[in-house]
Amino acid sequence: MIGPLPVHLSGALVECGCCIMYDVDLTNAIAEIKRLKARIIALQVPEGMKKRAYQIAEDIENNAGAEVMLVAEPCFGACDVPSSLFEMVEAIVHVGHSPIPAIRYSKPVIFVPARSRVSVSEQLKKAVGLLKEPVGVIATSQHLEELDDAIEGLESMGMKVKIGEGDTRISHVGEILGCNYTTATSIMDDVNSYLLIGSGTFHGLGVHLATGKKVVVLDPNLEEPREIEQAKDKILRQRHAAIEKAERARSFGIIIGEKVGQRRLRRARELRKLLRWKRKDASLILMDKFDPEKLKSLGFDAYVSTACPRIAIDDVAMYDRPLLTPHELEIVLGVRKWDDYSFDQMTDDEF
Amino acid sequence: MIGPLPVHLSGALVECGCCIMYDVDLTNAIAEIKRLKARIIALQVPEGMKKRAYQIAEDIENNAGAEVMLVAEPCFGACDVPSSLFEMVEAIVHVGHSPIPAIRYSKPVIFVPARSRVSVSEQLKKAVGLLKEPVGVIATSQHLEELDDAIEGLESMGMKVKIGEGDTRISHVGEILGCNYTTATSIMDDVNSYLLIGSGTFHGLGVHLATGKKVVVLDPNLEEPREIEQAKDKILRQRHAAIEKAERARSFGIIIGEKVGQRRLRRARELRKLLRWKRKDASLILMDKFDPEKLKSLGFDAYVSTACPRIAIDDVAMYDRPLLTPHELEIVLGVRKWDDYSFDQMTDDEF
Repeated sequence: MIGPLPVHLSGALVECGCCIMYDVDLTNAIAEIKRLKARIIALQVPEGMKKRAYQIAEDIENNAGAEVMLVAEPCFGACDVPSSLFEMVEAIVHVGHSPIPAIRYSKPVIFVPARSRVSVSEQLKKAVGLLKEPVGVIATSQHLEELDDAIEGLESMGMKVKIGEGDTRISHVGEILGCNYTTATSIMDDVNSYLLIGSGTFHGLGVHLATGKKVVVLDPNLEEPREIEQAKDKILRQRHAAIEKAERARSFGIIIGEKVGQRRLRRARELRKLLRWKRKDASLILMDKFDPEKLKSLGFDAYVSTACPRIAIDDVAMYDRPLLTPHELEIVLGVRKWDDYSFDQMTDDEF
Repeated sequence: MIGPLPVHLSGALVECGCCIMYDVDLTNAIAEIKRLKARIIALQVPEGMKKRAYQIAEDIENNAGAEVMLVAEPCFGACDVPSSLFEMVEAIVHVGHSPIPAIRYSKPVIFVPARSRVSVSEQLKKAVGLLKEPVGVIATSQHLEELDDAIEGLESMGMKVKIGEGDTRISHVGEILGCNYTTATSIMDDVNSYLLIGSGTFHGLGVHLATGKKVVVLDPNLEEPREIEQAKDKILRQRHAAIEKAERARSFGIIIGEKVGQRRLRRARELRKLLRWKRKDASLILMDKFDPEKLKSLGFDAYVSTACPRIAIDDVAMYDRPLLTPHELEIVLGVRKWDDYSFDQMTDDEF
């Protein structure tokens, strides 16, 4: 079933669902599969590339001689490599996210970047007026290519630029994750603002709350850079409402994410101890994909999530029971002040 | 956090979501957890018991001294024990389904029956007139208690009764699963009708199609027994429509279930070979929970599921692309006749 093996495979341009072209170069992955002599692998691609996943699979089957199974489940990051599949496959090829060095997998995971190729130079010119030197430059995983362009661009315009190193969850300088802003916080005393290459509000607001500094978001798929502080009030009001509602709760479910990079068991146990000390009922819950129906079925008055920090913030409108982050629970229980509010981040010692 | 250990724990009556009382006796499970010296376990209960799961967890924590995490994901059978959790826990307590002996788990799974206590005697009297001797008596996992009552009841009314043994997926005489009717087929030459203690249409129709015999369903939660043949036409029309639609498909996704008891890799490979022989595009897909959105994202013209056989039949209205069983694909490809139609069953040599 596997065709002849050509000498060299060039990078493939894969069209994403939202019509951005991503550059997916399989050369290293194919070499690695051959080196491992893996005969059966799982292939995980981001949601927007799903329709072309069979093409990537075919490339791998034809050129690496391994049988490929496409992973249908949506994938939200390197924390979300489906480790249970290692009972069936010899390796997983994961497209679209950088590795998280702190996560240990039981079998090889081969990370393939999916880098977009959008020019940021026009937006950069508009962003300069909003930024205050020195500028910390940061980017989400999908935009590491443009991170380099942005640094070069700012420097060529004479701006002082800083790049931070991350902790053990970060594999690339300047990269931030929804659960980790250490490349930003490590330079917070040396910068007066941040330029974030990314999309949405979550990451930028997270960095702003963690550092107290101005954050400008440059989304390569939009026309104008945005100052993140505009979104702050609405989100903080939502969080305040959730905290107030949870103050009346008697029973709490403490959710531990099942995904391989989200299993913060130690943090969950700490929170359970804290809740019991405050005379609240507290149970530990394992959850894979979050879903309001699952919380409703379990019937607790309020929930705390130690899994992906984005869920409580981004999906707030979906949940009728309060779904808090660990910091927010600490505010509910009176051991943290609202003035110390920041988004949840994951550190090694919580797992 | 763990309270004092009493000498003996009696069975707990747990109220299910639909107001039926289930008898959940944790005595054996607690003894087994102690014997294993398991310090941390996951607890999986059926959907209708979720609201009382924390009580079962508390019982286990107080009496077995193990930390318990509640599994929030819905659970559809013993095939659906979340084996990935073995990276976090030392054992899983699974309430509500019988073990499937053919499945090998990497760590201990402790099965706790949840037996309902509804009397079947009134319905049994009504069912007798519909049955033809000898009667094969079968039941789904939740109704094994009532299986015994039904056998006794029929015999006391002077009826000849047969009970079949199952293959390696079956742990109890007379028990049928949605993927396995071997306790029925093993006695098909010796009986003239079946009495099935269970609910819904799926299992009964499956037995009818597999054996050609009349099936009467006695649902302990309803008032009247039902002859299954009434539902046959509608479902077969739906299946015929899906098959016809799939005849025009050029690309097929062959779905392998990720759940530990549904991984029919060999069967999927056979189907892929067959599709390629018939000059169709065919890719292997791994899927955990089925969802029409996931199929839409992947973009194949038609799908074949080697996972739980119920999905294609029960959820037909949810899918706009044809979702076939392996038998149905064989009909599409002309290697099986429509007259040989039956529901999909799982056998050991397909994994």
